[in-house]
Amino acid sequence: MKLNCDLGESFGLWQKGDDQAIMPYIDLANIACGFHASDPLTMLKTVKLALKHEVTIGAHPGYPDLLGFGRRSMLYPADELTAIIHYQLGALQAICHSEKTRVSYVKPHGALYNDMMKNLAIFTCVCQAIKKIDPNLPLMIQALPDPAPYQKIAGEYGLSLWFEAFADRHYQDNGLLVSRSESNAVIHDSKQVIERCRHLKQHGQLLSINGKALALQVDTLCVHGDNPAAVELVCQLSELLA
Amino acid sequence: MKLNCDLGESFGLWQKGDDQAIMPYIDLANIACGFHASDPLTMLKTVKLALKHEVTIGAHPGYPDLLGFGRRSMLYPADELTAIIHYQLGALQAICHSEKTRVSYVKPHGALYNDMMKNLAIFTCVCQAIKKIDPNLPLMIQALPDPAPYQKIAGEYGLSLWFEAFADRHYQDNGLLVSRSESNAVIHDSKQVIERCRHLKQHGQLLSINGKALALQVDTLCVHGDNPAAVELVCQLSELLA
Amino acid sequence: MKLNCDLGESFGLWQKGDDQAIMPYIDLANIACGFHASDPLTMLKTVKLALKHEVTIGAHPGYPDLLGFGRRSMLYPADELTAIIHYQLGALQAICHSEKTRVSYVKPHGALYNDMMKNLAIFTCVCQAIKKIDPNLPLMIQALPDPAPYQKIAGEYGLSLWFEAFADRHYQDNGLLVSRSESNAVIHDSKQVIERCRHLKQHGQLLSINGKALALQVDTLCVHGDNPAAVELVCQLSELLA
Amino acid sequence: MKLNCDLGESFGLWQKGDDQAIMPYIDLANIACGFHASDPLTMLKTVKLALKHEVTIGAHPGYPDLLGFGRRSMLYPADELTAIIHYQLGALQAICHSEKTRVSYVKPHGALYNDMMKNLAIFTCVCQAIKKIDPNLPLMIQALPDPAPYQKIAGEYGLSLWFEAFADRHYQDNGLLVSRSESNAVIHDSKQVIERCRHLKQHGQLLSINGKALALQVDTLCVHGDNPAAVELVCQLSELLA
Repeated sequence: MKLNCDLGESFGLWQKGDDQAIMPYIDLANIACGFHASDPLTMLKTVKLALKHEVTIGAHPGYPDLLGFGRRSMLYPADELTAIIHYQLGALQAICHSEKTRVSYVKPHGALYNDMMKNLAIFTCVCQAIKKIDPNLPLMIQALPDPAPYQKIAGEYGLSLWFEAFADRHYQDNGLLVSRSESNAVIHDSKQVIERCRHLKQHGQLLSINGKALALQVDTLCVHGDNPAAVELVCQLSELLA
Repeated sequence: MKLNCDLGESFGLWQKGDDQAIMPYIDLANIACGFHASDPLTMLKTVKLALKHEVTIGAHPGYPDLLGFGRRSMLYPADELTAIIHYQLGALQAICHSEKTRVSYVKPHGALYNDMMKNLAIFTCVCQAIKKIDPNLPLMIQALPDPAPYQKIAGEYGLSLWFEAFADRHYQDNGLLVSRSESNAVIHDSKQVIERCRHLKQHGQLLSINGKALALQVDTLCVHGDNPAAVELVCQLSELLA
Repeated sequence: MKLNCDLGESFGLWQKGDDQAIMPYIDLANIACGFHASDPLTMLKTVKLALKHEVTIGAHPGYPDLLGFGRRSMLYPADELTAIIHYQLGALQAICHSEKTRVSYVKPHGALYNDMMKNLAIFTCVCQAIKKIDPNLPLMIQALPDPAPYQKIAGEYGLSLWFEAFADRHYQDNGLLVSRSESNAVIHDSKQVIERCRHLKQHGQLLSINGKALALQVDTLCVHGDNPAAVELVCQLSELLA
Repeated sequence: MKLNCDLGESFGLWQKGDDQAIMPYIDLANIACGFHASDPLTMLKTVKLALKHEVTIGAHPGYPDLLGFGRRSMLYPADELTAIIHYQLGALQAICHSEKTRVSYVKPHGALYNDMMKNLAIFTCVCQAIKKIDPNLPLMIQALPDPAPYQKIAGEYGLSLWFEAFADRHYQDNGLLVSRSESNAVIHDSKQVIERCRHLKQHGQLLSINGKALALQVDTLCVHGDNPAAVELVCQLSELLA
């Protein structure tokens, strides 16, 4: 199981996250592409930092909404959504190419990620968009109790899926996340997070908030590096999964 | 001598230029990349239109200034300017790739073009940026009486230069353009434009505003398609140069 | 009955609509405020043009989405939506003030207009936002068969409502517009538009697509000036209503 | 002598500065207006915070360049620059008005501030812009050995000037700042900053880097709140000047 983290989320003078601190401990860097966060120079710096720590680079395209950080759903016709993904993916590919490295996967960001998980038409559009650039680029999506509908569509486009779970989020018995509108959505206790991940590693099961064993296929854990405590947790998770 | 034209300059709902009308008559389409004009869907539509008319596609990157249409000079450090060019070039490359075509050259836009012609440090930065992506991409610049300094720098990066002249602009005796601040900068008489181009084609000379023969190396003529009269002129130039 | 028209919808170099042609024939200019269209200089020019033709100026605030022209619904919490309306309204007020005129009403644009009509919580937020700036600014909304719920809320904030009908749109028997997804949503025949408006003026009734008389309170007709035929129609409507 | 500080410089999710920590110690809050930093909701929150601490609110308009934080000079014709200032000033005025407070002065930001100080034509344009909104709004500019040219122009527009000095910057013997390109431009030692300000308060003189006494008229000191040490320094300066 690999650790993935959203990175390169600064914009101009505004800093966000501590990419320097977190990069040494992760395996997969989801790099923002300038539509919901980041800018060309930030992308270049983040690519260089990933290279230095031998972290695999993924494109993290989002809706064009800097003010809302790509967290607001916006309706796009399929051809425009496709072009928006191509644009961002190509921009990061060129910056990677300039540093003699490459984009190795795609993970949509924020509202685009949520819309893709909720709406198979949007998921299909994302798959088709990636296929048109390179069918060898895996698409990272949320690990689900029943991934079959997603696998079927991805398969039609020749794409591999990488499934991610959220280390610090509680799950319902049905395998979906406890909504952020609930007070217990996020697990703030580091020890508990570590313990869950240890269990997942050893038994291939994530425990729901009620203790039910969920047999999710999890290729990668999504982590955050927003503060020193988060970085320390990721450091420990990194050792656990090594 | 080929005809080149700036295209794909619409933005969202705002239309600019009549790309449909002009595309059949040109050889090289300089396609805006979203920083000074265009957006992902406009880029996609313009690439498709170029493909339909078998027009060669060039990237037309500019400063990030939609409000000013990239016509205001902005100071960037070299690493940021490089990243800005890579970002735009990569975005267009991906959209071309999705349509099974490619970007074949680069022509900077507006203030970036002017800054590059005035300042060899910026020209060097542009050359270096292109080389890092693909040294086989020619760079289009203004035809000058003495292109040697530009050729020397381009040569160091292994780049070819394409020289363009402006069909409808008056030239000074020194081979530079009559400034737009002068009343006679632009030639509005279509017949005169045609005549100048005929002379250039036959004798390899562009006549200055005082009638002096200028021996400019001209690979391509820059034309415009902003209005029906302009399109008609380009149609005639296209026949002349065929 | 007054004629209102969305104006000042250019952005930087991109022109939209023919404000010069339409301004002489209208009574109320809904001026875009820079979030979905327009920019400070365009706003200034449009205010000057309205002044020249003694047209009443209204603020036309929208969602912050230039690329989508404010036509995509975006979810905002009430405090942010309020601030977004204040920001745009204040910007236009200052530009009006610099020309010794003033904003006299508010008409939300595009998706914000639609969201406000569909969702009374958003309508309430708009009313509250206007009241905080100036309760003497009327709010323009769509004329409806039963405007009571809107009047009640507006009344709580001390606001007047101006009701608009759409000259060139077909109405259902229930007084709502025929959806743009239907082929017969828009009336393209100028004579028919004129005839409907004449009937509305004389009898206070708008005829539905099935010929049913709709007793809508209509303070103003919304017209467009996008092309020469549209301007000609507005000219005729102007004479009809004079 | 009052303390002024640039505030409200966050943008969407991106935080900048610690406005909560610094607000209690300052007298004048220069609030960004959305062109180089800030957004409507951030402006609203900053206005509320200033109100809570009874801090006088100033508009801090800048060039429209979020990516460059308004620090890049951009050339604007006078009418557009005027409209840009009016737009931002009006936006903040409306947000203040919604909270029953007001904008009390204007201080241009970043490159616009520098351009205004270097170029009297731009300074004139700024004065004229403010006058058209409200000639009772003072304009804050840099304290200079010879402010006469600025006072003359401001006087023609009926404007008052407020002169600011920079607490943590070294000055040349000619009364201008040591350029940031020099290694000793900024004074990092808090004690030295305090000592300089004490001397300025007692003797009305700022000492140059060579110890020369500069007789600058200083109405306000510009301070920063970017980090805990900066906040601590401002706290001490606040006590000193009380």
